[in-house]
Amino acid sequence: MNLSHIEHLGIAVKSIEEALPYYENVLGLKCYNIEEVADQKVRTAFMMVGQTKLELLEPTSDESPIAKFIEKRGEGIHHIAFCVEDTNEALAEVAAKGVKLIDEKARKGAEGLNIAFLHPKSTMGVLTELCDHK
Amino acid sequence: MNLSHIEHLGIAVKSIEEALPYYENVLGLKCYNIEEVADQKVRTAFMMVGQTKLELLEPTSDESPIAKFIEKRGEGIHHIAFCVEDTNEALAEVAAKGVKLIDEKARKGAEGLNIAFLHPKSTMGVLTELCDHK
Repeated sequence: MNLSHIEHLGIAVKSIEEALPYYENVLGLKCYNIEEVADQKVRTAFMMVGQTKLELLEPTSDESPIAKFIEKRGEGIHHIAFCVEDTNEALAEVAAKGVKLIDEKARKGAEGLNIAFLHPKSTMGVLTELCDHK
Repeated sequence: MNLSHIEHLGIAVKSIEEALPYYENVLGLKCYNIEEVADQKVRTAFMMVGQTKLELLEPTSDESPIAKFIEKRGEGIHHIAFCVEDTNEALAEVAAKGVKLIDEKARKGAEGLNIAFLHPKSTMGVLTELCDHK
């Protein structure tokens, strides 16, 4: 498997509106897109830093996985997403090496990416996403 | 302030030896350096993914901040480090905008970087480091 770069970092926030002034006015980043991912019950705001996006994740429902994360651990870094050539091939490869998967097959994520999550029990607590732009 | 890229991500692990097979054999990354940062009571293992290093952080003492992090939250992503031109100038800039600092001035970190941490109370839970290679 070849991880070309960190495609994005997911960061759980209570409110995109409250978080953006820090990212834009203090850190000097620029939010270029906000979109809702209905099936994950989140709104996402995107900024680039070098090769990598920061993806702010705001829950749109108490049932959102992000709402549960914030309730349990507070706001903070939620997951890391590595860019691969083909997510389904990469999933097959890591599963063959004993990694537990959350997603058995790639599904559509924000910005049209093909995405899949590995289980943090197999990744020493780091919620890890593989994704591609195909 | 201009953040050029994510210099590294710090990942808290109980044991570098137990974590490396996942990063090397499953994800296909290559550890190129292991060093001890005595004043932080950690051993660190480095791997590159695109522009960004993954820095595994293993506590060398129960008094290590990383030991306390793992005790409280479990293994996982510990901090994000943005590369700036001059850490002290960047600190002055963010402090003037009301950000609380952990380090008032840059100090030496792993790999000879000048580093300083912002307080997670000012960064919505994301422990954030600014660093430069000067």
